[in-house]
Amino acid sequence: MFLAEGLDDGRGWLPVVMVISVLALAVAGWLTSYVLKQDTGTAQMQVISNAIKQGAEAFLKRQYQTITLWSAVLAVVIFLGYYFGKGDAGLAWHTTVAFILGAICSGLAGFSGMFVSIRANIRTASAARTSLNKALQIALRGGAVTGLSVVALSLLGVGALFYLFGGLDNPKEVPFQIVGFGFGASFVALFAQLGGGIYTKAADVGADLVGKVEAGIPEDDPRNPAVIADLVGDNVGDCAGRGADLFESTAAENIGAMILGVVLFQHYGLKGILFPLVARAFGIIASIVGLMIVKTGEDEDPMHALNRGFYVTTLLAMAGFYVAVNQLLGNNLWFFAAGVVGIVTSFLFVFITQYYTEYRFRPVRSIAEASRTGAATNIITGFAVGLECTALPVITISVALLLSYYFGLKAQPGGGLFGTAIATMGMLSTAAYILAMDTFGPITDNAGGIIEMSGQPEDVRARTDRLDSVGNTTKALTKGYAIGSAALAAFLLFSAYMDEVSNLTKQAFHVVNIGDVPVFVGALLGAMLVFLFSALAIKAVGKAAYSVINEVRRQFKENPGIMAGTSQPDYGTCVDIVTRGALKAMVVPALLAVSAPVIVGVVFKNVRFEGSSPLAGAEAVAAFLMVGTITGILMATLMNNGGGAWDNAKKFIETGQYGGKRSDAHKAAVVGDTVGDPFKDTAGPSLHVLIKLLSTITLVAAPLFI
Amino acid sequence: MFLAEGLDDGRGWLPVVMVISVLALAVAGWLTSYVLKQDTGTAQMQVISNAIKQGAEAFLKRQYQTITLWSAVLAVVIFLGYYFGKGDAGLAWHTTVAFILGAICSGLAGFSGMFVSIRANIRTASAARTSLNKALQIALRGGAVTGLSVVALSLLGVGALFYLFGGLDNPKEVPFQIVGFGFGASFVALFAQLGGGIYTKAADVGADLVGKVEAGIPEDDPRNPAVIADLVGDNVGDCAGRGADLFESTAAENIGAMILGVVLFQHYGLKGILFPLVARAFGIIASIVGLMIVKTGEDEDPMHALNRGFYVTTLLAMAGFYVAVNQLLGNNLWFFAAGVVGIVTSFLFVFITQYYTEYRFRPVRSIAEASRTGAATNIITGFAVGLECTALPVITISVALLLSYYFGLKAQPGGGLFGTAIATMGMLSTAAYILAMDTFGPITDNAGGIIEMSGQPEDVRARTDRLDSVGNTTKALTKGYAIGSAALAAFLLFSAYMDEVSNLTKQAFHVVNIGDVPVFVGALLGAMLVFLFSALAIKAVGKAAYSVINEVRRQFKENPGIMAGTSQPDYGTCVDIVTRGALKAMVVPALLAVSAPVIVGVVFKNVRFEGSSPLAGAEAVAAFLMVGTITGILMATLMNNGGGAWDNAKKFIETGQYGGKRSDAHKAAVVGDTVGDPFKDTAGPSLHVLIKLLSTITLVAAPLFI
Repeated sequence: MFLAEGLDDGRGWLPVVMVISVLALAVAGWLTSYVLKQDTGTAQMQVISNAIKQGAEAFLKRQYQTITLWSAVLAVVIFLGYYFGKGDAGLAWHTTVAFILGAICSGLAGFSGMFVSIRANIRTASAARTSLNKALQIALRGGAVTGLSVVALSLLGVGALFYLFGGLDNPKEVPFQIVGFGFGASFVALFAQLGGGIYTKAADVGADLVGKVEAGIPEDDPRNPAVIADLVGDNVGDCAGRGADLFESTAAENIGAMILGVVLFQHYGLKGILFPLVARAFGIIASIVGLMIVKTGEDEDPMHALNRGFYVTTLLAMAGFYVAVNQLLGNNLWFFAAGVVGIVTSFLFVFITQYYTEYRFRPVRSIAEASRTGAATNIITGFAVGLECTALPVITISVALLLSYYFGLKAQPGGGLFGTAIATMGMLSTAAYILAMDTFGPITDNAGGIIEMSGQPEDVRARTDRLDSVGNTTKALTKGYAIGSAALAAFLLFSAYMDEVSNLTKQAFHVVNIGDVPVFVGALLGAMLVFLFSALAIKAVGKAAYSVINEVRRQFKENPGIMAGTSQPDYGTCVDIVTRGALKAMVVPALLAVSAPVIVGVVFKNVRFEGSSPLAGAEAVAAFLMVGTITGILMATLMNNGGGAWDNAKKFIETGQYGGKRSDAHKAAVVGDTVGDPFKDTAGPSLHVLIKLLSTITLVAAPLFI
Repeated sequence: MFLAEGLDDGRGWLPVVMVISVLALAVAGWLTSYVLKQDTGTAQMQVISNAIKQGAEAFLKRQYQTITLWSAVLAVVIFLGYYFGKGDAGLAWHTTVAFILGAICSGLAGFSGMFVSIRANIRTASAARTSLNKALQIALRGGAVTGLSVVALSLLGVGALFYLFGGLDNPKEVPFQIVGFGFGASFVALFAQLGGGIYTKAADVGADLVGKVEAGIPEDDPRNPAVIADLVGDNVGDCAGRGADLFESTAAENIGAMILGVVLFQHYGLKGILFPLVARAFGIIASIVGLMIVKTGEDEDPMHALNRGFYVTTLLAMAGFYVAVNQLLGNNLWFFAAGVVGIVTSFLFVFITQYYTEYRFRPVRSIAEASRTGAATNIITGFAVGLECTALPVITISVALLLSYYFGLKAQPGGGLFGTAIATMGMLSTAAYILAMDTFGPITDNAGGIIEMSGQPEDVRARTDRLDSVGNTTKALTKGYAIGSAALAAFLLFSAYMDEVSNLTKQAFHVVNIGDVPVFVGALLGAMLVFLFSALAIKAVGKAAYSVINEVRRQFKENPGIMAGTSQPDYGTCVDIVTRGALKAMVVPALLAVSAPVIVGVVFKNVRFEGSSPLAGAEAVAAFLMVGTITGILMATLMNNGGGAWDNAKKFIETGQYGGKRSDAHKAAVVGDTVGDPFKDTAGPSLHVLIKLLSTITLVAAPLFI
């Protein structure tokens, strides 16, 4: 009765969201205990698994120390900036607390995901000795812990802040006060993705170059001193990094959509503002059901099983979306249509990513063919494929933006931008499932490594190989999905920024005129930032990899027993070298990303020309943000898909094409794969985070530009 | 007396420009006869030179056939579009005639430059047998023919059209009627640069991969069947291609600046409109003097000699600029200051390009060092350097744009954009000298090839090697200069487009709001076009190179006498294969570039939303153009400098570093060099042209968008 009344005026929907989120965390806890109950295999397997666990935990501990330090510095800067800059103590406290909570939740999501995945790997490996289905379920449920924690923590954090800051009574102001949460999440995500991405690829490139190419030993061979560092990298990069990435996506986009809901307050009241949270909460339920029904036969392609779960999740999410529109947006079916646009967009992105990264199709085959004439033509062709593969995603996003904008306008005059926000909500409603599939990747990758290193029989290895290959596909698809949702959400975040500026100045700000010289210069600098940031990320990998290579060479040289198999290599030193290298290298690009938009805003606020607008600073930053985002989307797509295509061109040759393994074509393809590694696992994913960090930092720093 | 009066009211300055241009052509004719009078060396040298000449002429003939065909089609489209679309027969004729004249002049400039350079190569080689100074002078004067023809033909064409269309009596309308000239020039330049760029790198990559890497024979070895195709490529790519590129730059920027002059008509009248032509004409005189004084001692670094000429040219050009400001712009020294900004910018670009592409500095050395761990780390590091090297040029351009805008506003209220135009004029006032230095590159490269292939003694080879190495530097500098001037000119061309739209609709158009969804989508598509276009250009090289490689392998296999040196390879087939491949491959990217902005404009004119502006189509195109330009500048810089850095990292190792020639590091560096080839000589330079083509086509097609 009380709830029903609350649902009518909107207030009751916040507890609904919170309860669903807590339930999702409970499910995550149950899944954790399910995973931990499983068999942990032989003693030899445990030795390897423990080495991975120790390495990952040591890295995470040191990484979080660095992040905590920088977050504390930034929290002080934010507080002082708002306190003295805006002279508003209440807003200063709110923004700072929101920032800290965002940073903590993000760290928690990354940590809990990795906590499970470094324990699920050995259990998956052990289960693979008897049953493919069992192994699949353990890996996926381990991944689901990340997926559910990320989405639920983001909803809980945003919902709690909204409630605590008095959002139920003051719903038009409070969404602007929780932008700090999004910035905190992005800030931690940037460090997590950069640090993890540098770690994973420095270890991988280092291990491959000396192991496969120079010493001629296979991947995951226990004689390679960098092999444990490589396996640790899968966890800290793909698992902790991607988790933080998607945590900040969901956080930033929820907040942005709530801000857009403020614009429609006269029509939908509190319900319009809470709609994004409710739609996301229904999406969690859909994801839980989808995850629980996944089951594979011993002879089935495990990808089919994952796809079945995804279809169920999508259908349920669509139904949930309908209910949310029906209950909160006056059953306005144009809004539902906008949500469907988002869901269809996510399907198209998955398909396009497959086309450009799987060897069933022309692009990857062309790279494999070019490998016959050597590494140079392999690289040239792969780079061309990477450049080319940006076209279809951009066209898809363009159509989706225009369509959802159109549907929004149809639904409600002036609701065009809210339409694009709803499309983003639609696209992200399956986020928990997608993220579970993504974390499935490093778990099966690790399981394969453990099986390989502990010398299990061939048929067990065949099982983990099948799971590992599915994991590679799901990792690629998630990256396509992440960049697609970032692109679709970009506009929503720009608008939130512009609304924030309007809100602060109490004057309309809806024009970003790049026909104006200073604004154009802002745009030019935004695009340049993406290039420079990518350069720093890639260079960091090169530098860290270089030190790993030297260490492995040193061990091979000083201890010939390693290659003979009579003595154990020193895994710990390699882990240590990569950890130090990655943490050192992540600071400069992260600080560049954080400071660049602030510098641009402050400089252009003060560089004034005759007749320039009083909002010139805010406008230059908007152009910086928008064109930086455009360039970032293109560059990230190039890096992700180009890297994936190189990887699979090598795998295609390994199936026996063009001479198969050990042929000259294969050697050329290994070069391409190695070049693609920092593209697809360091720079590309870090650019996702960069794009959203630019949005959240401009939201938080907006008072400085006006 | 009559002239003095004409100079007072501005009318007399047009004849001054025309006379200077005709004189410059006369000097070019005299230089041609000077070159042709020189000794043509031994019979063996002539055999090689004739093979190059035949290959280059055959390519140019077939290329011009293709270009003529497409130009004719486009001329009809333009005429019909203006005739039926605008219903203005006079404007239709004017635009079509201007287009055709622009295309013809551009073709003529490319042809005359190449005519001399394929004759100067052997004469430079012959002179190198006795005197370094003589060889330097022949090569530079051969290059000067291109430089002078390009700038003079551009001034003559624009000046003649302005006069014929009645510009002296109707100066506020006529600049808009000659935009077709710029588009004709860009259109031909795109084909010339793409076709030539694909040709030169397909031949180079093909020759290197099979010759150097597989067969282990040195560069320019006569046993390599692709060696003549490679030498032909230097002429058709660097010489004819770059000539057409800079022709369209000078044409488009002259016209754009004249259009901006219209805005200031009330202050400076006809003089403001003719100022760009006069400043450029004075620049020609400065360049002629600079070119004639170049002289080197036998033991001097020839680069110093070229630099002396450049300093003299710059000083004289600055003096000429001062006179032009004094005579035509009321001696307004703020405008002179804007011009100085442009000249300083060109110096900074030259310095930055050197820093990133010469092995005296850190970036190239880091690539060389990374080659020690193989091709993969060489590529990763080189790519990172390419990404990083975009930062300083962008910052330089940003400061130059803001400063010249500020000086323009100081000079005249509302004159900010004219200030940026004047900075562009300043930067381009030395264009003829720079272009001469650029064409010097392929001439000395060819001369070196002829010396090598005809087995001249070591000391002669040392002389041509010194000239060739200077040629490599000047080629890199010209590319930096070309992209810098394109970036500085970009804003001038955007403004011309916006003025054109205002002029056509008689309503103010000065806002391009990328905060509006359709406009943002236009921007997104513009950035994407750059990626897709680069992909097509690079793929074309890969495809054409692949066929060359197969042909060379076939010849080596079927005729073992070639490697033994007992029988002659079949050079002609290789030349033929590359010609066909390059011409076929250039059509798709060229048509994409021409059609994309038109499609965007027409679609967005018709996709209308509630409350969208009546100029929505024109606005989306403006965003497409601006963000496409931004992305193009960055991508071109990445490709040009990255490619140059890879090239010189290889050269650095060849000086004996890291094991020198034939070491593993050297092999890795050769891979990097090969990857960089299509970047720096095909995709990069084609992007310069693309950027300006987008500007000129939007100018011409503007009536379709409104």
